[in-house]
Amino acid sequence: MKQKRGQLIILSGPSGAGKGTICEAALKAIPNLKISTSATTRKPRGTEKNGVEYFFLSEAAFKKKIENGEFLEYAKVHDHYYGTPKAHIVQMLDKGIDVILEIDVQGAAQIKEKMGYGITIFIAPPSLQELQERLVDRKTDSAEQITLRMKNAQTELKQAQNYDYIIVNRTVDQAVDDLTAILRAEKCRSLNNLEIIQEMLM
Amino acid sequence: MKQKRGQLIILSGPSGAGKGTICEAALKAIPNLKISTSATTRKPRGTEKNGVEYFFLSEAAFKKKIENGEFLEYAKVHDHYYGTPKAHIVQMLDKGIDVILEIDVQGAAQIKEKMGYGITIFIAPPSLQELQERLVDRKTDSAEQITLRMKNAQTELKQAQNYDYIIVNRTVDQAVDDLTAILRAEKCRSLNNLEIIQEMLM
Repeated sequence: MKQKRGQLIILSGPSGAGKGTICEAALKAIPNLKISTSATTRKPRGTEKNGVEYFFLSEAAFKKKIENGEFLEYAKVHDHYYGTPKAHIVQMLDKGIDVILEIDVQGAAQIKEKMGYGITIFIAPPSLQELQERLVDRKTDSAEQITLRMKNAQTELKQAQNYDYIIVNRTVDQAVDDLTAILRAEKCRSLNNLEIIQEMLM
Repeated sequence: MKQKRGQLIILSGPSGAGKGTICEAALKAIPNLKISTSATTRKPRGTEKNGVEYFFLSEAAFKKKIENGEFLEYAKVHDHYYGTPKAHIVQMLDKGIDVILEIDVQGAAQIKEKMGYGITIFIAPPSLQELQERLVDRKTDSAEQITLRMKNAQTELKQAQNYDYIIVNRTVDQAVDDLTAILRAEKCRSLNNLEIIQEMLM
């Protein structure tokens, strides 16, 4: 039997909903799960290594990859390009590795469409009040930034219904357990098991 | 917030694939899960109690219920009627209880259609050889019966692709863990979480 393709998990949600924390905990808790590495034209900071935090590219190399259609999506933010390289993800999936990908609500549907598959998961806070408290507690944003993030959150929450799953992040443990269950359940989807049935009927 | 409806799990699979064992283990392992009780016109045996093993009905009462459309499905087997009472299942689901229902491949799609919802799961053996060994080890069937069951199994396996999920029963623990994951993942389906999102946006 040939290697079963890994699962692609596409994660979105408002800033402060806990995507990063859930990702980090999931990578520790779930065997065979890796995170997709983005490409960027910004310079490495501190101990950042090429291929670990990011694939660091020159602007010329990045633009060449855009032309060649090598990104599932890309964006320019504050003078620097950021993109999701398709080949990197496909290579891992082909090896049977499950890949998790954090992306904004605009990018998620686009990536699922371009890949032709993928499990889209929206991470929601338990309430807007809780979201605001988390943003305040984080102490990284000004009051104005928090107001903006809260406004964006409402726009993003309206997209939640377009995702396959919604994980309400009450606690990190519960959210990671939900993610683990989704991954396990998706492996049981009949589409992912037709081969073993067909082999039995041959 | 009103009580969230429980999930209806519709389980099928060839004789010997392990449906009964998985059901029994799942009822012990998964909190808030109950099994649907069938109705029958056969007489109670030994310590069987009405409403526990079966709802025991007179033939007149059973036929009246057929006329009233009270069964999701029913069949006559060796002079006795057996049926799945809809009200019994709906009452449990309305209380937020998850309900598991064992049914043959003919009945599964019919029940999901009549209910308008339900998670269909096909329990498959790891191989036909393993299935045959299990049937032999069970020591309840004659060689002819086993041959017939193996023939039926092939017909049933062809229906597996029409189910939402396929659980390959390698060990009871793994199969119950798969079932638990499916139940948890289904609770995260966006359709089942739109209410919490809508409440946040109000």
